[in-house]
Formats: sequence, C-alpha cells, structure tokens
Amino acid sequence: MTDTKQHLWGGGSSEMHPALAAISDSLGQDAPLADADLRGCIAYAKALGKCGVLTDEESTTLADALVKLREEFTDGRWIPSGGEDVHTAIEQEITDRLGDLGGRLHTGRSRNDQVATAFRLAVMEEIDGLIQAIRSVQQGLVNQAQNELDTFVPSYTHLQRAQPIRLAHWLMAYFWPLERDIERLLQIRTRVSTLPLGSGAVSGHPFGIDRDFLASELGFERVSENSLDSVGDRDFAIDFAFGASMVALHLSRLSEELIIWSSSEFGYIQWRDDLATGSSLMPNKKNPDLAELVRGRSAQAVGDLVSLLVLIKGLPSSYQRDLQEDKPPVWRIAGATKASVNAMAAALEGIRFKGEKMGSALTDDTLATEMADVLVTRGLPFRQAYRIVSRLAKEARERDCGLKEAATQLPAESIEPLTIDDIQNLTIEGAIERRTTPGGTAKSAIELQLAKAQALLA
Amino acid sequence: MTDTKQHLWGGGSSEMHPALAAISDSLGQDAPLADADLRGCIAYAKALGKCGVLTDEESTTLADALVKLREEFTDGRWIPSGGEDVHTAIEQEITDRLGDLGGRLHTGRSRNDQVATAFRLAVMEEIDGLIQAIRSVQQGLVNQAQNELDTFVPSYTHLQRAQPIRLAHWLMAYFWPLERDIERLLQIRTRVSTLPLGSGAVSGHPFGIDRDFLASELGFERVSENSLDSVGDRDFAIDFAFGASMVALHLSRLSEELIIWSSSEFGYIQWRDDLATGSSLMPNKKNPDLAELVRGRSAQAVGDLVSLLVLIKGLPSSYQRDLQEDKPPVWRIAGATKASVNAMAAALEGIRFKGEKMGSALTDDTLATEMADVLVTRGLPFRQAYRIVSRLAKEARERDCGLKEAATQLPAESIEPLTIDDIQNLTIEGAIERRTTPGGTAKSAIELQLAKAQALLA
Amino acid sequence: MTDTKQHLWGGGSSEMHPALAAISDSLGQDAPLADADLRGCIAYAKALGKCGVLTDEESTTLADALVKLREEFTDGRWIPSGGEDVHTAIEQEITDRLGDLGGRLHTGRSRNDQVATAFRLAVMEEIDGLIQAIRSVQQGLVNQAQNELDTFVPSYTHLQRAQPIRLAHWLMAYFWPLERDIERLLQIRTRVSTLPLGSGAVSGHPFGIDRDFLASELGFERVSENSLDSVGDRDFAIDFAFGASMVALHLSRLSEELIIWSSSEFGYIQWRDDLATGSSLMPNKKNPDLAELVRGRSAQAVGDLVSLLVLIKGLPSSYQRDLQEDKPPVWRIAGATKASVNAMAAALEGIRFKGEKMGSALTDDTLATEMADVLVTRGLPFRQAYRIVSRLAKEARERDCGLKEAATQLPAESIEPLTIDDIQNLTIEGAIERRTTPGGTAKSAIELQLAKAQALLA
Amino acid sequence: MTDTKQHLWGGGSSEMHPALAAISDSLGQDAPLADADLRGCIAYAKALGKCGVLTDEESTTLADALVKLREEFTDGRWIPSGGEDVHTAIEQEITDRLGDLGGRLHTGRSRNDQVATAFRLAVMEEIDGLIQAIRSVQQGLVNQAQNELDTFVPSYTHLQRAQPIRLAHWLMAYFWPLERDIERLLQIRTRVSTLPLGSGAVSGHPFGIDRDFLASELGFERVSENSLDSVGDRDFAIDFAFGASMVALHLSRLSEELIIWSSSEFGYIQWRDDLATGSSLMPNKKNPDLAELVRGRSAQAVGDLVSLLVLIKGLPSSYQRDLQEDKPPVWRIAGATKASVNAMAAALEGIRFKGEKMGSALTDDTLATEMADVLVTRGLPFRQAYRIVSRLAKEARERDCGLKEAATQLPAESIEPLTIDDIQNLTIEGAIERRTTPGGTAKSAIELQLAKAQALLA
Repeated sequence: MTDTKQHLWGGGSSEMHPALAAISDSLGQDAPLADADLRGCIAYAKALGKCGVLTDEESTTLADALVKLREEFTDGRWIPSGGEDVHTAIEQEITDRLGDLGGRLHTGRSRNDQVATAFRLAVMEEIDGLIQAIRSVQQGLVNQAQNELDTFVPSYTHLQRAQPIRLAHWLMAYFWPLERDIERLLQIRTRVSTLPLGSGAVSGHPFGIDRDFLASELGFERVSENSLDSVGDRDFAIDFAFGASMVALHLSRLSEELIIWSSSEFGYIQWRDDLATGSSLMPNKKNPDLAELVRGRSAQAVGDLVSLLVLIKGLPSSYQRDLQEDKPPVWRIAGATKASVNAMAAALEGIRFKGEKMGSALTDDTLATEMADVLVTRGLPFRQAYRIVSRLAKEARERDCGLKEAATQLPAESIEPLTIDDIQNLTIEGAIERRTTPGGTAKSAIELQLAKAQALLA
Repeated sequence: MTDTKQHLWGGGSSEMHPALAAISDSLGQDAPLADADLRGCIAYAKALGKCGVLTDEESTTLADALVKLREEFTDGRWIPSGGEDVHTAIEQEITDRLGDLGGRLHTGRSRNDQVATAFRLAVMEEIDGLIQAIRSVQQGLVNQAQNELDTFVPSYTHLQRAQPIRLAHWLMAYFWPLERDIERLLQIRTRVSTLPLGSGAVSGHPFGIDRDFLASELGFERVSENSLDSVGDRDFAIDFAFGASMVALHLSRLSEELIIWSSSEFGYIQWRDDLATGSSLMPNKKNPDLAELVRGRSAQAVGDLVSLLVLIKGLPSSYQRDLQEDKPPVWRIAGATKASVNAMAAALEGIRFKGEKMGSALTDDTLATEMADVLVTRGLPFRQAYRIVSRLAKEARERDCGLKEAATQLPAESIEPLTIDDIQNLTIEGAIERRTTPGGTAKSAIELQLAKAQALLA
Repeated sequence: MTDTKQHLWGGGSSEMHPALAAISDSLGQDAPLADADLRGCIAYAKALGKCGVLTDEESTTLADALVKLREEFTDGRWIPSGGEDVHTAIEQEITDRLGDLGGRLHTGRSRNDQVATAFRLAVMEEIDGLIQAIRSVQQGLVNQAQNELDTFVPSYTHLQRAQPIRLAHWLMAYFWPLERDIERLLQIRTRVSTLPLGSGAVSGHPFGIDRDFLASELGFERVSENSLDSVGDRDFAIDFAFGASMVALHLSRLSEELIIWSSSEFGYIQWRDDLATGSSLMPNKKNPDLAELVRGRSAQAVGDLVSLLVLIKGLPSSYQRDLQEDKPPVWRIAGATKASVNAMAAALEGIRFKGEKMGSALTDDTLATEMADVLVTRGLPFRQAYRIVSRLAKEARERDCGLKEAATQLPAESIEPLTIDDIQNLTIEGAIERRTTPGGTAKSAIELQLAKAQALLA
Repeated sequence: MTDTKQHLWGGGSSEMHPALAAISDSLGQDAPLADADLRGCIAYAKALGKCGVLTDEESTTLADALVKLREEFTDGRWIPSGGEDVHTAIEQEITDRLGDLGGRLHTGRSRNDQVATAFRLAVMEEIDGLIQAIRSVQQGLVNQAQNELDTFVPSYTHLQRAQPIRLAHWLMAYFWPLERDIERLLQIRTRVSTLPLGSGAVSGHPFGIDRDFLASELGFERVSENSLDSVGDRDFAIDFAFGASMVALHLSRLSEELIIWSSSEFGYIQWRDDLATGSSLMPNKKNPDLAELVRGRSAQAVGDLVSLLVLIKGLPSSYQRDLQEDKPPVWRIAGATKASVNAMAAALEGIRFKGEKMGSALTDDTLATEMADVLVTRGLPFRQAYRIVSRLAKEARERDCGLKEAATQLPAESIEPLTIDDIQNLTIEGAIERRTTPGGTAKSAIELQLAKAQALLA
C-alpha cells in the first residue's frame, strides 16, 4: 500500500511500468476502506492539534473539512477517484480544498499505520454485522425448536438411525456451535480493536501524538505496543478469517443435513417455493440450492483463510508489500459468510418439518439402547445387557422384522430378566424421557436449553 | 447454475427470496463465459440440424443468428443483461429475435452440460495465455543469462555462501521449473479439452446428437465418456488451479531471491526506476514492491486451489449446486497468476545485475570445496580431504581471515599432499570450470543448457 | 538433510544442542529411503569407476559390498542404526567394512543430490503401487457394473431424483475420474523420474560423472538440467501429493454417496458383515464406517498437499533446510491414500445393491423429462414442452400424486399434442433407452463404456 | 472411534476385513489418550455411584481399581495392549480384574462421549505446555532486548533500510505477537474445557449422572449444553490447531529474519556452534538450519489446520466416523510447534548480535525521514519537506554518496529552511530519540515496553 508513492509524491521521475501498475493497483480492493479512512483522518487531524504540530485553529479547520468530506462521501456527493488508492484520493481532495494545510495532514503518519488503522475499523464493523446476522439464525433455530418441541425424530450417527430424540434437540445442536462462533468472534474483535495509528512507517511517531486520544476517538480498546509489530501485523485479519470460516463450516454441516433431509427418501423437509429452485431441463425438480450454495461457500472460506495464513509465512517483521494482498480475502470471506448466514436465516423461516414422516422412521430398532438401559435398571451389567439386545437385533435383521416381533420369536430366557410384556411396553417417548440429564433429549432438558438460549438472545 | 430456473422457465409461481437471490446470483462470475457460451450455442445449433431435431434450414438460421449475435457481443454492440446469468440472457435474446426457433435451442441440452462446456473453453484460453506469458519470462531469463555468462556469483545454500557459479547458472535455475510448469499445463489442457456437451442434465442426450462433431467444431480433443461424470466433474478446474499455483510458487521463490539481492547488504540488483517504488513517509526508499507483490500473490493462488479442492470434498457424483462456486477461484487465479508472470517478465527486462559486487562476495571460503576436490585428484579419499579443509576453515574463522591466509599459518604437513603454492593457485574460475558435467556451472555446461532452452523457446 | 554433518564429519567441535537435535532428527522419516539410497549408492560406486575417480577394481569391490549390504538389509540381517540418518548409517557401515575405500563413496556427491535421488526413487514406487491399487477399484466398479447392467435407479442431482438411469451408469461415473487420476499420476511419474544425482551440493559434479549412465542404472527417464534447480526442486513431491489428493477426493465423493445410500431411508446398499461395524452403546447399529473413514482421510490428503505447497512458498532457489520437511507429508499421503483405495476395493467386492428398492424409487416424476422429450419429437419447441410438463408436475405435487395420475385430472388440451394414452405408455426403460448417444445411459452406450474400460484394464 | 465394536462387543459374528482394519486402527493415534482416559474412567466410576447405578461400595471398588491401574500405567508396569484402541484395553483390563463390576463401567457412556472427553483433557495439557514454552521464548527476547538496549540497527521495510531503531525494539516486535498467541490460546482453552461426558452416544444420559460433579472432578470449566453437538463437535481441536498455527507462523517470520541476518552479507548474527550445522560436502559452511527447520515446520502446521477444517466440512451433526481422523493432525501440530518453540528459545540464548556491523549499516540515507521531520519542526508542511528530501536522496543515489555529502553539492536554497550545518548535525541517535510516543523506538518508550513485558512474564 505504502509504496507506490514515488510516482506520486515526487522524487521519482518516471512513470510506473504498466505491468507493475497492474499488480500494484488496489483501488478496487480499498473501496470498503474509504469511510474508515475518513474517520481515521478526522481523528488524526484533531490529534495533530493536541500535540502542537497544528495550531488549534488549523486542527479544527482541517478536521471540519474532513467531516464535511465524509458527509459528502456518505451521501454520494463525493466519490474518491484519481490517485492510486482511496487514501491518496482523500488526501489530494483535502489538499485541493485547503491548500498547504491539507499537506500537513500526513505529518508523522505513513501509509503503513494509516491503512492498518482503517482496515481494522472496517473489520470491526464486519464482525459486528456478522454477529448480528448469526443471531438471526439462532433465533430461527429457537423458534423452530419451540414449535417442534413435541416432534420426535431419529437421531443419526453414521447417517444410520440411532436413538429417538426430539426434533427441538436436533435444532438446538446447531445453536451451540454458533454460540461458540460468537464467543470466538467477540474475542477476536478485542484483538482487532488495537490501534496502530501513531506508529509511523515503522519506528514510531516523532511528534508525540496522543495515541490514547486517537484510540478513544476511533473506538479502539487498546493501543499497540510496538511500532514495528504494528505495521507488519495482520494477525487480526487472519483471526477474523478464521472466525468467519468456522461459521461457514458450521453452516455447511447444517446444510448437508438439510440437503439429505430434503431428499424424497428422507422426506423430512419441505421448502417454501421462494427458497427452492427448479431445473432448466427437468420440469419435475425442486431443489435445495440454497443449502448447497451455503455448503459450497464454506470451501471458499477455507481457501480465503489459507491465503492469509500463507501470505505471512516466512515474511520478516514490519511492513512488506506482500501485505497489500490481505484485503481481498477478507472482503470476500466477510461478504460470502454474511450472505450464507442470511440465507440460512431465511431458510429457517421458510422450511417446514414433516413430523409424520419422521415419526414413521422411528422403527423398533431405535429402541435397542432403551431396551439395554431397562435391563441395566433391572440390575444387569451393561455389557451383558448389550449382548442380549445385540442378539435380538441380529435376529430382527435376519428376519427383517422389528425388535419387538423378534423378541416373540426367541426363547423367553434369552431376554431375561425382561419379559415379552416389558418389551412390548417400550415406547419412543419413554426412551426420550429417560434422558433428563442436562444436555439430554428429555423435555425438561430441552426446556433448560431453550431457556439458556433465550437468555443469550435477549 | 442449472437450477435457478424454476422462476424463469415457468412452473414455479413465486419470486425468489432475496437472501437466496443474493447467494444464487452468478452474473458477475459468468461474464468471462459469454463468448465461450456463444461458441457453444453456435456449434449446438448446427448439431441439432445434423441429428434431425431441426431442419437444415432451421439449423442454419439459428446458427447464423448466433454468429451475428456473437459479432455484436464482440464489438460491444450487444451486452448481455436481464436474466440471471449470461446463458439465460443469450437464450432470451435469440428467442426475442427468432421466436419459436430460439426456444428450440435448448433441446436436449441442460445448464449442466452447457455451462461445463463454456467453462472448459474459457479455461483452455486461460492456459494458452498463461503459457505464452511464461515463455516471456523464460526468454527474459535466457537473455539475461546470455549477457551474464561470464559473471561470477556465489551460489547460496541456507542463504550462506556455498560455491562459486556463473550468474547465468543461477538465472537458468529458474528457467527449468517454468519449463516443468508448461509441461504440466499442457498435460492439464488435454484433460480440460474433454467435451461435456451432449450429456444432458445428467443421463445423456435423447436425440442422438453427434458429439464428435461438436467436439471438432469447438476444438475439443476428446468427448467425455459418462454423462453423470460429465456434469459433476470439476477436476479440470482444480487441475488448472494446481498448474497455476505451481507457477505462482515458482515466481515466489524467484521473488524472494530478488528481494534479498536487492537489499543494500547484498547489493546485487538495481531496479529500473519505473519498476521500483518509493515510500509515502521515507524519501530515501526505493523498494522492490514488484517482487513482493508477486510473492504475496502466490498465497492467493494456494488459497484458490484449496477452495476448489474443498469444494468437491464429499460431494455425491453428478451435479450439485455447490459447483457454481467453481468459477470465482478460477478467474482469480488465472488473472492474478498472469499478472504476476507479466510483472516478472517486465522485471527481467528492467533489472541490472551488479557483477562487481557479486565478485567481491566470492571470498576465499567459497573455494573450500575446490580445495577438497583438488585433494581428491591427488588421491585422497574424500572424507579425509574434507577433514583437512574443515580444519583449515575453522582456523580461518577463528583468525577471521581467508582460507589462503589461514593455510600459511598452519604447519605444512597439515595440508599435505597440497603445498601452500597449490592453495595460492586455486581460483574462482578454476572451481567453476571443474564442473563440466551436464547440469554443472562450467561454461560448456551452461552453453548446453542455453542451447536446449533456446530450442524450447523457438 | 545435508547439513547436520558438522558434528559428524569433523570441523565442528561441539555437540548439537538437544533442542536443535529434536527438530533436526530425520531418522524416522528417512526409513522408507533406505533401500532407495542403497540402490543409489550402488549405481554411484559403478559410475565413480567409469569416470576414473576409482579404479575398475575399487569400483567393483565397492559396488559388490553395497549389493551385499542391500541384500542383508532386505532380509533383515542388517538394520540401519547409529548416525543421524539412514544415509550416514549406510556410509559408516560400508566404511567399517571396506576402510578408506568406503570413504571414497561420497566423492563429488552431497547429501543434497543423494537424498533427492533416493526420495524420487521412493516416490516412483509409491506411484506404481497406487496405480495398481486404483486398478483394483476400477475392476470392482466394472464387475459390479456388468452385474447391474439391467438394474435401474434414479439419477440424482441436488440429491433430488432426476432421471432414471442404469445402475451400471452410476458405477461407471466413478470409473472415469479414477482413469483421469491414473493419467495424471503417469504424467507426474515422468517428472519424478528426473535424476538429480551428479549435481553435487549445488554447483555440479567436479569429476565428470556419467549422469546418463546413472539414470539408466537407476531407471530414471531424464537427467536434470541445472544443478541449483536439482537440489532445491521439490515439485515432484508436490506433484505426487496433488495426484494422490485427487484420488482421495474422488473416493470421498463415492464414499459420500455410499453412506447416503446405506441409510435406512435410501436402503440401496447392504454391507457385508466384515466390512461394517457396530456401536459400543447401541446394539442395533450397523455402520458404513469404511466409507466414512475414506471420506475423512481425504481431509488429511488436502492438508498434506497444503503443507508441501506452503513449504516452498518464498524459499530461495537451491537447497534450504526447510526442505527436510518434505518427506513426512509424502509418506503420509502415500500410505493413507493407498489404504483408502484398498478399502474401497474391498467395499466394492462386499457391498450388495438392492435393485428392488431402487426400482421402487423410480416414481412417475422421474419421467418428466421423458415426457418433454416426447413432446419435442412431436414437434414442440423444447421451452413449450417444458412448460406443459412443469404445469403437470406442479399439479402432481399439489395433489401429492404421480404425473400419470395428474394427467388424468387435467383438461385434455393442456397436454396436447400428447394424449392420456401417450402418457400412460411412458416407461422407465423407454426413458433410459432414448439416451443412446455415447456417454448416455442406454444399454448400448453403457456397453460401449464397459468395452473401453475393459480395454484400459487389460 | 465408537464403532468398530461390533466385532468386539458381540452381535457380529464375522472378523473385520483386513482392508477395513487397516484404516480403522487407531491404537497408534490413541496412545496419548491413555492417561486422560484413565482419569475419565475414575471420575465416571465415582459418578455412577453418586447417581445410584452403582452402590457406594461398588463405586469405590471400581474407582480404586482404576486409580491403581493408572498408577501402574504411569510407572510403566501396565501397558495397554490387545483390543483395538486404548479405551477397550482399559475396559478389558478392569473387567479381567474385577469381573462383572468392570462390565458396569460403560453404563450410560459411549465411545463418543468417552473419547471426546479424553481428547479434550489431552488438548488442555498440550495448551498448557505450549504456553509455558512460549514464555521461554518471550523471556529470551526480553533478555536480549535488555542487553541490546543501546545497540542501533536499521529497521527494514521491503528489506530495504528504513529508519534507525534500537535492536531492543526489533526484538520486542516478536514479543507481542507471541503475547497475542498466548491470549488466543487461553481463550481457546476455555472452549476446550467443556465436558462432553454424560452425553451418551448421541441423545443424552439415561441414569441422571451428575455432570457438574464430573466436570469438577476432571477440571473442566463448563458442561456441554447439547448431547448431539457434544459428540460431533471438534471445534476445540480446530481451535487449538489454529492457535498453534499462529505460533508457528510467528516463529517462521522470526526465522526468516534470523536467516537473512545470518548471511555473510548482513552479518548481524553469530550462532553458537552447538546451534548451527555444517555441510557433508562443503567444509566451509556454518548454516542456520535451526531457523530453517522452524520456518519449514510452519508449513506443516498450516497443513494440519487445513486437514481439520476440511474434515468437518459438510458433515452432518452428531458423530460420524470421519471424526476419528481428528487426532493425528492434533498430535502432530502440538509436537511440532512445541519443538519449534523450544528450538527458538535455545536459539535466543545462543545467538550473539553483532552491533558493530549493524552500526555500519546505518548509513546517511536512513536519516532521510529525520531530515523531513526536522523540516516539519521548522514549519514546513510535511509534503513539502518530503519533496525537498526526495530531491536530495535522488541526488545522493546518482552521485552514489550519502545524504550529507549530497547536501553540500546542491545550492543552499534547495534545502531551505535548513542549512548545511543543520544537516551535518543530524544523528542516528537523534532520529531514534525523537520517537518517544508509546510504541516508538526512543529509549523511554522501549523501557515502557520492557516493563510491561516483564509484568506479563512475572
């Protein structure tokens, strides 16, 4: 970022070679920084007054002109252009308007600390927006969970039917990973919120600028401790990309399951028409593209994270121009993840779960663990109970019938101390309601989950 | 790609939800496909005539109208718009122009095979362009090597001075990796050049279209063997991304070395003014940003490759909408790698090597291996020769002097069977010219390399 | 690899610091190189004789002793130990056995070219083994396809039922990606098969060794062109990791589909008992762990590839010690991918497809495209045919009935020019057999695929 | 993990196919879990007593036997063997010792929650060990910084000399990234420290086990909220891999700079003999292999992180067998990162900085910014000051002389309002001491950094 300025600031006599210009140009990737840079300039103009580089009057004039420019930018009256990046465009414009005073704005500041500051401000905003969007998905999960509190569905491990659970339990299984994501993003935000401004190009600020004042003006929680580190540190960008990747991957897991549950074979989910799509060739299709796109986007997120990790591998400390390549992956992952989160929030409002189909999948064999558990309550060691039910399950598989029926086919002593009646009395709801321990699928345990979740959303 | 059409093609009554539209939209990412899609449509219109779906006259009318549309597109008179992607825009435009006949174009074709075809055509063009650009870098290396045939420089391992070599040898060490890249890209191109058109949505073409004819019209080398595989195969995109990544990584290695050699401490390279940049704060700086940007871009390339690899992980066969996310990483890696290659070609024209500075770095200690080699020619086992020279090198380090001087300080028997005179007579050029085996740094061996390189460039 | 020798070869007086030793040690990761290194030593001993560094007799004695050592190593009588890596262990052992003559073996050779040579030999063997294993999977696919030629199954896009196909067609959709993998691996093998030996440490060989002879002795197809490039080139390892990753990802796609098809809801696949697993808690479970493990291993493969790509990012040319980290990812990806391929070959022998269940999934709506195609054969433009069938499909969805029944509920003119009878006569087999174009799902087209596949396997 | 038990627990009659066994086997990768699993078993045995599944006496007997087994394991008297994983080996051993009571241990527990618990315990230990190791590196940096407080060195941006700084400032620029790493690892540790035990296989615990008691026994800070999420959540492993990767990448940056500074051309660093290495062919070499290995290892870390990210992409919720592949990357990244950190701690004790060489690199041109700053203090706008110095710098480059000398060659008015005397009076120390703002390189600012750092280390 810093260093295409020979051509701009004088000194150098020659034009930039077009092939260098082609890889140097960052105007497109800097656009999201314009507002943040204006905020940074305003604070810096004030601080130059405080430390005596400018008189109070100069400082006020400069800051006011920048505030005005920001207003014009916000409502579209002024559009950054000319110059090789938005920072140059802003400085040039303010110099055109104020003459020499504009030329004093960059005193003690360099592109290195200036851009890092604007970038961090922009990333903080992305984090805030992302967290808000995630909250909508969580709200959607809670809403559905409340509606489906009494819907039963098989849980699956290995995509094989395992034990019966409440659908609300399944829905909430996606709430908590997103809660971890928010916790992680908030922790990351604190690291992003470290002010580099006042670090100069690399060795510090020569005119005693008040960095605490700058931080407080711009809403940073901390001030960086070492100027070399400040100008070469892109950990905050990687941190954010990691936080966003985790969100994207969690949504990829939910998407996978929505896709499978949308198949005719499962038939657990119906998509509202405006959330599904058709085919250009097959008139019969109604496809869960939304979920597929969300799943697909997670691949992009991993790639963007990798780009940033590889970028800093083996770089010396302080600023190297490689670091200009930090922004495109960040804008991409921010935009793509937010779009995925929004899409999933919409999906959770627009899908309908088919409880009846789920119920019909709760075949006898999902009661196998329940049967073993009952045997344990009758005093059998679990391993022995397990073996009894295994034998029964095998029998059922071979006869291609349910566990209950299989039990009637075996000698009574093979299921002792249970009786046929005990087995006939086993129910899905009974199996569910046995699991009252916190985190389990019994109604009381789910209600506990929901109460905690609502407290977090409040 | 395929399946946003419910809303377009009828059947579905509702509008698409904005959050779905936001992640579905591919108009931006499809733009590079417009010309390729028009080519595909033209060939397909002809083939529909050959297999009897259209009469000869219909086929000709349709193909001619498409040829005309392509001309208008090429010279900017027609710009695809409306529709959710370029394919829709093209089909709608041709239907507006020709009525019902336009509506016959999509017969037996689906978005799945149509888009895959256009995408492959575009990737083939990217490969051709990239190879041509690489050739420029190779030519730059050969030109510099010819100029610097008699310039000596230390070779480095571990960034420590190792043995003296010709600068031409160092330059050519970057030629051959690029030659491997071209070999790899050409092999990849053959796999890209496999025609999916005629696979329908997934199960094949119902009207006996002549796929060999299509392939020959469009310049494909092969016809795909299985329609399910055809519509779900993105290996060609990954293959290309891998090929481009390797180019980017090779340039990152060259860049690293250019950056180090550009430091004041090495001082081996002078950049032409239009290829270097300055600093916004430090008036003294002249920075090798070009090389840093090229090094940085390699990180993006690795990330893009990862995105594509992750994209297909765990997808079922045939088409899934995730695959729409295949294009952005490909356009990015194609554009970024070509820009890097072009920048490096410019750099190789515009840097000057400082032979004198290199020569002064060829201190005595780079003759250590030469000394051991001479001892071997006098009949010593190498391990013994190694030990003698090691002792001398250690002595030199301790006295902070050269090997030759150190030799004068040791008892004569410690270097036997060499004499002090033998050691004084050792020369840099002698060490270089001893390495005549092909691949070595002697002049004759370099000339062999150059001859082979020129044959490849011819 | 090269450079831990100060401590060994003399010169240096001090022991290695334990923390350095801990990250230096490569004995574990070098073990797979032992045999390859012995082969390299034998060839080098002969070549030293040919170029006059050794007399014919010395050369023969040395080579014979190495051949004998290799035999002892092969049958376990000699185990490399002591020394910091296998190369040192071999050289020390031969020096113990032959005295001074052993000390001549390393003449003109360095760890750099020696290790690269052994590593390439080992990678070539890995490629050969991997290709052979892939062939078993392909054979399994062909065998199953031949058995299931007349089994019909829905094809799926977006995991939604699309059009009817032959199960053999689905199976063969996994044959061709593996064929691309073999093509790619064979091309990669050619690049691996480039001899670095004779490059010395970095600048070439000082005693005119005959590199063509070495290549021919060791089975290399080419001789490297530039010694600097030779000792720093790890492209062959990355190339291999990429080739193996693609195999792993292809198997991850097949695994995903096997897992979904193994669910009770799909019910298309039955696993032989010895290929499935149970649960420690749920006695009812029979899980497709094999496929899940194969899918999971693909993640490791991508990571290993990334490790290698990142490793060379930003390294200068020639040898840097970073390159020692090249071997572990290669051994891992080689071992894991081969295990996955073998597991999948076993799976394809041990799974049974349930054709009846597949048949019952071929509901009316999978005939929608067939219906549109028939309308096209009656002269309708495809877009119009599409709209007619879309309307019908929508009707069927709303009435929750099949297309055929829906047709009886609509006014006759709404399906013109078709009649109710036309629609009743549509069949799954008819839809399948319409797709005779090569690559399609008609029997003749599948037989063509199978014939080509068998020719490749022969 | 869970599900290789059909073969073990009964039910299944057949042996496992060798190809499945080959990819199933996790005994090697589970070894680091043995102690953690024993701890988990002990706590679980107690909790089974508390919830009434066991009598107090049974509970005590079982727990005591497990405590004894753990002691035997710790001092090597008992080695887990037999069984397919360590968990089975432990359960079998305890059943051998206690009979039926041993068979009750697994009541209400599954491999899913059991293994997740042990894995988390082990990761917490890795985090603690890693943080401790990082503290040693930080201490090493602080020690060197204190020694080198008055050593001056050029700062570099783009590897070009920028402005003079204190060497202590450069050293501390590596302290703060490591401090961020520790902050991140501690936050991650909190997420790792979430107890899954009591989640059963997937749907919760059927016998009301007291999970808060389990957490407190085992040192977990939290109890997981949802059993489905608990058994399928590997975020903690990814979180850890990310935290470790960042450490590895920070060390890669330090390594890069150490390598460059170790070159003869820079000559800033001397390695103690036991921390450097030589060459097998070149007797003159003394190489910074330690730093190269650390740099290379960061590539492995990125790959391991990628493996884990890809692993969970697109997995449904709850347990899938893919997740067994979670452990090898974690053990690898933990081991490799700790080895790198330890190596770097050793390096910081064993390298000597050559202040004199650094001083001689502080040529006139590093005073350019200082000159501009002085002009600013005389009232010039920065942009004007910048242009004056740029002209001077260009003059100096053309004359190949220093700035001070160049100033004497230009007309006096070209540097106004400065005089030649002003320029002659500029000093390196003056430039350094001007940067007193916190984060800057003036002595007072560095002392502030050091004080903060020591407080953190205390």
